[in-house]
Amino acid sequence: MGIASPRNPKVKALAALKERKERERTGLFLVEGRREVERALRAGLEPLVLLLGPRAGLEERLLTEGKEVLLLSQAALERVSSRENPAQLIGVFPIPQKDLAQVRLPKDPLVLVLLGLEKPGNLGAILRSADGAGVDLVLVAEGVDLYSPQAIRNATGVVFGLPVFPTSEEEAARFLEAQGLPLVAATPRGERVYWEEDYKKGVAFLLGAEDQGLPEAWLVRAHARVRIPMRGQADSLNVSVSAALLLYEALRQRSSQDPPQPP
Amino acid sequence: MGIASPRNPKVKALAALKERKERERTGLFLVEGRREVERALRAGLEPLVLLLGPRAGLEERLLTEGKEVLLLSQAALERVSSRENPAQLIGVFPIPQKDLAQVRLPKDPLVLVLLGLEKPGNLGAILRSADGAGVDLVLVAEGVDLYSPQAIRNATGVVFGLPVFPTSEEEAARFLEAQGLPLVAATPRGERVYWEEDYKKGVAFLLGAEDQGLPEAWLVRAHARVRIPMRGQADSLNVSVSAALLLYEALRQRSSQDPPQPP
Repeated sequence: MGIASPRNPKVKALAALKERKERERTGLFLVEGRREVERALRAGLEPLVLLLGPRAGLEERLLTEGKEVLLLSQAALERVSSRENPAQLIGVFPIPQKDLAQVRLPKDPLVLVLLGLEKPGNLGAILRSADGAGVDLVLVAEGVDLYSPQAIRNATGVVFGLPVFPTSEEEAARFLEAQGLPLVAATPRGERVYWEEDYKKGVAFLLGAEDQGLPEAWLVRAHARVRIPMRGQADSLNVSVSAALLLYEALRQRSSQDPPQPP
Repeated sequence: MGIASPRNPKVKALAALKERKERERTGLFLVEGRREVERALRAGLEPLVLLLGPRAGLEERLLTEGKEVLLLSQAALERVSSRENPAQLIGVFPIPQKDLAQVRLPKDPLVLVLLGLEKPGNLGAILRSADGAGVDLVLVAEGVDLYSPQAIRNATGVVFGLPVFPTSEEEAARFLEAQGLPLVAATPRGERVYWEEDYKKGVAFLLGAEDQGLPEAWLVRAHARVRIPMRGQADSLNVSVSAALLLYEALRQRSSQDPPQPP
């Protein structure tokens, strides 16, 4: 059973999930691409339905085994896809319901707090680095939607296995307060360079939108403000690069107590 | 004097500069956006002509003072633009002719060598970080075009003030050999973690395409192979994030001889 017409009402409804409002109304979101769907399934997410294109290969077909499948024409697939070249497998999943109150952090945790990010692509890129660095928790406080197609794409689907929570600024503040973690704000006006701080004992890095930076209240709330040295023409790095530098500096400090030795 | 129709032959010719082949044929490229054009002018590039849209503001108009200007209708501008929301200022510049043989590196230089990158957006993002880290030289050995609209956009225009050279693999190899710099290859199969190497004495980092990695010959040619720790589900970071981690680790080592102290 398949759908040929891109004007079919079901296809229209699926395509509407590219909009945040519609995701929030239905509680559903799209996961495009074989690797991404694979990572969602591996993380234990149960698809409502998997959309399969006419050019799907063996690997896409294997992934859909035992699941409810809707076959789409290329034209219908293109309408639901967010890519220039649509993937031949798109999953429709319920948005995971997770409760921040249930989170138990390990000793000396590595936490990332994203405040009012503006670009879903940046959020996705940050999550990819956060996965690489093995963070214990990511809070997405307001700003872009974690479940936007662009965020999931740039995160290469790692979002499903990550301890990442959309939240409000207030809830994030209360949670961090309760945890008693040192808050380290990344800001061009930081008093110290980021590698001069000590991150061995657990830390929550605060990052804001690229243009706006961190809200004033969070700059004040932070226990330390650090800057990334800028030696060139521009006055800031991409926010996903800034996030990676902070996380991997924490990792470096925790991995080696000694300064690097000449080879 | 302005152009209203997007089908005007001049507009067609300008829009064709979005294609690499046409840039190579004409020796011209497009710089879209006020900040980007400003950075090109500040770097001393002389525009052939500046394209001004009907909604250009005071800042765009100030930048065009004394330059040859072509006024475009919004429809014509959209055709030349590479953005969803076209910038109201687009510059047409001759591709800078630079000779790698003329480059004189400082003592203990920080060099980045990009081998066969596939995505212009990644190249741009890397150049933005390279500018931030204050690299002494970037070699773009084959792969994507330095002058593609997407590269210039993601680099936020810093490419013009950067010592960056498109080159062939052979020329890059000869140049690096002549400089006698230690070559450090970033690869998932690296023997050591990147922060375990010493970068104080000058270094050339080698980075390849995200999927393919570095060509075998370069892995062999390298004096050290380093990896970035991956603690999560994915097996690699975005190449622009990898580049930033390496460059800023070199910066860190050069800035501070001491390990970080507890606050």
